[in-house]
Amino acid sequence: MAESPVRRPGGRSAQVRATVLNAGLAELVDVGFHALSLEGIARRAGVNKTTLYRRWGTKEALMLDAIRERASAKVPIPDTGSLREDLVTLVRAAIANLLTPEVQAMVRVGIALSPHENAVATMVSSFWTERLAVDGVVVERAIRRGEIPPVDPGGVIEAVLGPPYFRALVTGRPVTDEFLAGTVDLVLTGLLDPEHREVRGDLP
Amino acid sequence: MAESPVRRPGGRSAQVRATVLNAGLAELVDVGFHALSLEGIARRAGVNKTTLYRRWGTKEALMLDAIRERASAKVPIPDTGSLREDLVTLVRAAIANLLTPEVQAMVRVGIALSPHENAVATMVSSFWTERLAVDGVVVERAIRRGEIPPVDPGGVIEAVLGPPYFRALVTGRPVTDEFLAGTVDLVLTGLLDPEHREVRGDLP
Repeated sequence: MAESPVRRPGGRSAQVRATVLNAGLAELVDVGFHALSLEGIARRAGVNKTTLYRRWGTKEALMLDAIRERASAKVPIPDTGSLREDLVTLVRAAIANLLTPEVQAMVRVGIALSPHENAVATMVSSFWTERLAVDGVVVERAIRRGEIPPVDPGGVIEAVLGPPYFRALVTGRPVTDEFLAGTVDLVLTGLLDPEHREVRGDLP
Repeated sequence: MAESPVRRPGGRSAQVRATVLNAGLAELVDVGFHALSLEGIARRAGVNKTTLYRRWGTKEALMLDAIRERASAKVPIPDTGSLREDLVTLVRAAIANLLTPEVQAMVRVGIALSPHENAVATMVSSFWTERLAVDGVVVERAIRRGEIPPVDPGGVIEAVLGPPYFRALVTGRPVTDEFLAGTVDLVLTGLLDPEHREVRGDLP
């Protein structure tokens, strides 16, 4: 199959790419990160392994692409005109995505291995630098609308994603919809309170 | 050494216990959780391995004790008379504790393995059920003082620990003192806002 796919959206190359990235996530769930290999992913995808070596070079580069694509597909950036609505929609989609076996496996691997493996740490940090910027667009729009004062958009995203991630990955308590909406409300109340102007500069 | 230590605080038995628990944490950092064994911990502590089998039975039970003791020692429960002060003190100590190599190793192991190993999942869930209740005492006192309306104390602890944990373990952005204090301020503002009464019932 596809020996030299051209990077062009929508065509055969894009199809091969999607097949490979999905195979990477499925293979991770099945074999774990240590046993994961470009060979194994190629076999699962039914693609020549030289294609994978040429296009991604390492399993970390491939998996970064896989998790990035998954997040783009499953966590679209809302634009409802209300920051509260945007954040609730975003957090709900982000946590639903986190709770799938593939994404959980990636996130847990990233947390376990990033202190020990530079390639994993780089993958995690690239993903989050990019993702906080992408998610932060909803905050930037709210600032431009005058809905909230200027704040660090990535910090707001961390404030609303932090508690549900903590629950899902650390304490294991149930991540209910009320909890997600409550977290967003709490953060927005803090951001909007005129007596807590200093908070705005600090946290986010 | 100490073949049949009696469980009595302060004596020789307590000393052996402390030596063993510290050896467990040090051994975890050196060999990782898979290679960790009661034999290895006994060797490192200079204690007969039958003592460890009799007292703890499994490495998971020993490590739960180790992380619990470490948290009690390094994250004392403050009682300053102000919820804000108490929470800032608590979160600062909890994150300083999290950022030590031993506790990071434990937490990352817990996150990586709890979906796959029941004994690890039980260890993590026992630790956090207990720890959220212990930390939640500062919130309970504030409720009794009338400083805040009735809320779920564990939920408040999750709201203030979530964002710094997320930063430390997931996004990797720096966990500054301003960030910690800002998180506490944001949560308290939300809890205290009379226009957001519904939040109180929901989140915490």
